[in-house]
Amino acid sequence: MSLTIRVGIVGVRGYTGQELVRILARHPYVEISYMAARNLKRPIPASSVFPGLGGKLNQSIKPWNLKHAATACDLVFLAVPHGTAMSMAGALLKRGLRVIDLSGDHRLRSTAIFAKAYGRKHSAPQSLREAVYGLTELHREEIFDAGLIANPGCYPTAAVLALAPLAATRRLDPKQVIIDAKSGVTGAGRSVRADLLFSEVNEELHAYKVNRHQHAPEIDQELVRLGKGSFQCIFVPHLVPMNRGLLVTAYLGLKKRVSASQLEKLYRSFYRSEPFVRVLSSKDVPKTSRVVQTNDCEIGVRIAENGKRAIVLAAIDNLGKGAAGQAVQNMNLMLGLNETTGLK
Amino acid sequence: MSLTIRVGIVGVRGYTGQELVRILARHPYVEISYMAARNLKRPIPASSVFPGLGGKLNQSIKPWNLKHAATACDLVFLAVPHGTAMSMAGALLKRGLRVIDLSGDHRLRSTAIFAKAYGRKHSAPQSLREAVYGLTELHREEIFDAGLIANPGCYPTAAVLALAPLAATRRLDPKQVIIDAKSGVTGAGRSVRADLLFSEVNEELHAYKVNRHQHAPEIDQELVRLGKGSFQCIFVPHLVPMNRGLLVTAYLGLKKRVSASQLEKLYRSFYRSEPFVRVLSSKDVPKTSRVVQTNDCEIGVRIAENGKRAIVLAAIDNLGKGAAGQAVQNMNLMLGLNETTGLK
Amino acid sequence: MSLTIRVGIVGVRGYTGQELVRILARHPYVEISYMAARNLKRPIPASSVFPGLGGKLNQSIKPWNLKHAATACDLVFLAVPHGTAMSMAGALLKRGLRVIDLSGDHRLRSTAIFAKAYGRKHSAPQSLREAVYGLTELHREEIFDAGLIANPGCYPTAAVLALAPLAATRRLDPKQVIIDAKSGVTGAGRSVRADLLFSEVNEELHAYKVNRHQHAPEIDQELVRLGKGSFQCIFVPHLVPMNRGLLVTAYLGLKKRVSASQLEKLYRSFYRSEPFVRVLSSKDVPKTSRVVQTNDCEIGVRIAENGKRAIVLAAIDNLGKGAAGQAVQNMNLMLGLNETTGLK
Amino acid sequence: MSLTIRVGIVGVRGYTGQELVRILARHPYVEISYMAARNLKRPIPASSVFPGLGGKLNQSIKPWNLKHAATACDLVFLAVPHGTAMSMAGALLKRGLRVIDLSGDHRLRSTAIFAKAYGRKHSAPQSLREAVYGLTELHREEIFDAGLIANPGCYPTAAVLALAPLAATRRLDPKQVIIDAKSGVTGAGRSVRADLLFSEVNEELHAYKVNRHQHAPEIDQELVRLGKGSFQCIFVPHLVPMNRGLLVTAYLGLKKRVSASQLEKLYRSFYRSEPFVRVLSSKDVPKTSRVVQTNDCEIGVRIAENGKRAIVLAAIDNLGKGAAGQAVQNMNLMLGLNETTGLK
Repeated sequence: MSLTIRVGIVGVRGYTGQELVRILARHPYVEISYMAARNLKRPIPASSVFPGLGGKLNQSIKPWNLKHAATACDLVFLAVPHGTAMSMAGALLKRGLRVIDLSGDHRLRSTAIFAKAYGRKHSAPQSLREAVYGLTELHREEIFDAGLIANPGCYPTAAVLALAPLAATRRLDPKQVIIDAKSGVTGAGRSVRADLLFSEVNEELHAYKVNRHQHAPEIDQELVRLGKGSFQCIFVPHLVPMNRGLLVTAYLGLKKRVSASQLEKLYRSFYRSEPFVRVLSSKDVPKTSRVVQTNDCEIGVRIAENGKRAIVLAAIDNLGKGAAGQAVQNMNLMLGLNETTGLK
Repeated sequence: MSLTIRVGIVGVRGYTGQELVRILARHPYVEISYMAARNLKRPIPASSVFPGLGGKLNQSIKPWNLKHAATACDLVFLAVPHGTAMSMAGALLKRGLRVIDLSGDHRLRSTAIFAKAYGRKHSAPQSLREAVYGLTELHREEIFDAGLIANPGCYPTAAVLALAPLAATRRLDPKQVIIDAKSGVTGAGRSVRADLLFSEVNEELHAYKVNRHQHAPEIDQELVRLGKGSFQCIFVPHLVPMNRGLLVTAYLGLKKRVSASQLEKLYRSFYRSEPFVRVLSSKDVPKTSRVVQTNDCEIGVRIAENGKRAIVLAAIDNLGKGAAGQAVQNMNLMLGLNETTGLK
Repeated sequence: MSLTIRVGIVGVRGYTGQELVRILARHPYVEISYMAARNLKRPIPASSVFPGLGGKLNQSIKPWNLKHAATACDLVFLAVPHGTAMSMAGALLKRGLRVIDLSGDHRLRSTAIFAKAYGRKHSAPQSLREAVYGLTELHREEIFDAGLIANPGCYPTAAVLALAPLAATRRLDPKQVIIDAKSGVTGAGRSVRADLLFSEVNEELHAYKVNRHQHAPEIDQELVRLGKGSFQCIFVPHLVPMNRGLLVTAYLGLKKRVSASQLEKLYRSFYRSEPFVRVLSSKDVPKTSRVVQTNDCEIGVRIAENGKRAIVLAAIDNLGKGAAGQAVQNMNLMLGLNETTGLK
Repeated sequence: MSLTIRVGIVGVRGYTGQELVRILARHPYVEISYMAARNLKRPIPASSVFPGLGGKLNQSIKPWNLKHAATACDLVFLAVPHGTAMSMAGALLKRGLRVIDLSGDHRLRSTAIFAKAYGRKHSAPQSLREAVYGLTELHREEIFDAGLIANPGCYPTAAVLALAPLAATRRLDPKQVIIDAKSGVTGAGRSVRADLLFSEVNEELHAYKVNRHQHAPEIDQELVRLGKGSFQCIFVPHLVPMNRGLLVTAYLGLKKRVSASQLEKLYRSFYRSEPFVRVLSSKDVPKTSRVVQTNDCEIGVRIAENGKRAIVLAAIDNLGKGAAGQAVQNMNLMLGLNETTGLK
């Protein structure tokens, strides 16, 4: 392949944006042709944010500018806060670019549910309809042709990968979906908040947004697509004193009894050809440290209550498969490249 | 009160033993008259383990010796590994001492369940029958007169405090008790194991003993006493990269719908007079950093599924209320002292 | 002693202020009669900041108000940022209160050096002249009678304790004083800055203000008082990913050769009667974890270059002996109490 | 280049061995043809240690066996403890393989100094004479032809890179070389020791082997080669609660005064063509988090005492440039490849 794709990244100073730059800087078929950050007044050298990338990035980070982005790029990653991406995405799409939005702005199909989850009205409902949900393993065909990808949230990525084999085979009792999730602190982004200071978070553990996190309806939406029922999961996220890594522990009621070996077989079969999903043996448990800095997902399955309940654990890197890694996986698909290019 | 109680601590080099020494060294009515450690060949100065306690502990730490302990003490704390405490406890009881066992050796009433949980036969079934389960808030009368206290495990302490108000009022559906627990690393004790090395545990999160931890039957046993049913909880513990602190997130099916305010009222009422249990308002969540170095337990309650399910969070210090703190609380009761002496 | 001293604390939401509250809440001769925080518009319940102190603090935290403070207190601790304390201190002194200032506002005697170190003109030079430098071990007599205590910085506390025995005996070569210091993150205070976010500081180590930290002239000033020479130390602080603890490693040229045993003897003799300073044997090294949550200082000494250089290590808790602990030690002295009251 | 080099790694379960595997698994001209671990009784699948490398490593990890290694490999990395490598290296060299020894066994030229530093007699003095010290930036020509590379220690790598420009230009006063070093915990290797348990190291900071670490003579040896004098540095390492990263802060007496700009110019010029060494501007400081997971070294320089002393800071990844990264850099040189292959 002799073509080089020109990609732009908006929001390069956040943790997700930084991770995108790191991955894309060594991607063989991509040139980072545009880097922007909000709240910049004038360009700054990329080396001030990415000293280690030296020669590979001898350009500057610029204040966001639509025309500039549209001229410089074939495809743009939006790694900006929720609420900011929707207008950028629409404008870029109109100019014929393809867009991968890593914010939450295009994940929920219903504007009503969006308004409730994010506490604001959606200003671009037509983009919502166009957007393809980028959980790669479940939506490959649509992603291939998509103009706009809604890159999944970190929690939904792990949770849906953990639940999909049971949901898709209608084994899941919709009334019994409990998801206890734990994330490292980069999951909260790089916003300067008192509750994210080192000495507040270190040596501390707590739940937050107990059963009212905006990722819960995103999980429900995917379960409905997969399982054709009415799902309303219980979802409780926790903040863990580490930089990266996310673990989901799901407690799942089953419609019919399943044996331990049937359950493991179901999961192995479902993810048989997946390069990034690893179903572990029952002697092992998913560990976040093994997936950090990768696009991998480790899954472990157990039965409880004589097979009437499944316990499924899934570990990802919240910045990898939970954000930047999956975004690049989606980009690879959109460009007809091997899905693992630049990611293994 | 002019009496000074002579107390001994066996296992002073472990994390629980160290915490006991720290608390008891400033207890106004107690004299630490004996400190022992296993695997010692000859006495070592206490100052080598507790440099900060200086003048308060100008004695030595000795190899464990029954006669010595029996002569020097009125009451002995056993902070030794499971399997080691049962013979010590019996021998001390015979010589008329009172014993608080912080190991798991006397917590389970059934020798069959003990054998299954701990993978060994119990060598002193008669002590099992004598032992009083030391979850102070639930067993005050028995503790007062007890010769042998089985001090609860760290996970059961948080879990049972989280569930007791619902269990005691028969609101809990025995088939729907799911406990997701997270603990700091001192919870694993001070054993020299490769998987507890700093660089293995730091920046890492995983579950362990998924639904087969020895604390699960201990929780069930208490729920049965409280709720008069047949309980078999689902219990999954996780290891979190911090020194101290333990959080339980319980997902509980309810027999009848309950409103958020009814739930909060139930918990406030149940723990109204408890000096160490703090039921939080619904705007707050339990935080481990606020209970670390204390004997406190913070509890937060939420309803889900229109009141058909409760989510209850409980935070303790695994070495405080989850071990040494509660042991001293029990000692205070046994000695007729104010329960908070030396603990607030 | 039947008197109870009424103390106020301004700045109770910062880490130093919180630590003061924790220590003073259990001090036997003190009543916390006033708590204030800057940037408050209306009073908030103390329980919202100190849930664990429950009944002991059934008052509110108020916006700072001079009259209120002056009426409610006999002595006030100022735990506010540099630049804020100087006007408060003067006003409180005028009304006859005693003041312990934990900010840097009154530590440097020279207004010129102050201006250079803190980048601002001192607005109350007369208070500067009145202030007594509160490094307790070195200034007991003056502290006893002082109206205004300039509580030392965390780095100077450890550094001066490490150097004092050599400086006071004129053994120190003024041209060869190198102080490499390392501090936990609470040392930076609780200001909401991007560079103090968990994911910026965790798994990261760096020096800052290399040889231009405002604590260097404070160290020099004390060395001059002790050693009667002209000192200008080299001082490089580092930020270490932990909450609390501070370690100084000092590399000190000596005027005359000293043997290892002479050096150890000198230090033991100098600190012989000090309840909070612990000179270790040469087999041990100072460890921050052993002094955290205490007012202790651990010191280790070594010789190098055949006795022409000393290496002295000192560990303290930056919030303990390095701030709130020493402030209370000073208060005890000012009130004629035993220096260790409430601190051991 | 169509050749693929067959490399072996002995000690793949340690942190250095694991890092070697990770780097070499994606190196374009290398095939990992042999992996061994000591203390293995029978082969184990590589996937049990490296689950993420999946298809790339479908071989097993074997008990160390000389013949097997000699047959399977062209070049062998020894990532085994000190004392273990010397016999392996000699045997492999005899069979015509090239060897990169990451242990300390071949770094010190003098058997007397070796014996003193490592507390054991060297059993293969002839290998010592053959070995080339693999600080790549300083020994390129010798490395190119070498049969046996003594890969430098992590501390000496950072320290010598920090000092080389001053030493090589004879500006360094040999009596004034003070090196204060700080390392993450993987630097201590993966040995199962009580003092390396998470709860012992976390929230703790201390110095160790104060001025008697085995890396000090290694630093001296290189300074002598560079500076033609008699060097005996003062070297104090500290253990910092983080996984990876190493920072050296060097306090260096200068023979003649140097200005800040001269110093910076000297360093920039010395490292002008180096792909892995980055001299920072005086507004920036070296940060370990920016070099972790790379083979980079960040250097910052400052003057003190009006140019009579330099303060030089250097940050590396102890497992990267301080071990596995530099070993691969050396391998690239030995094989005539571009030095950065597989490392950028």
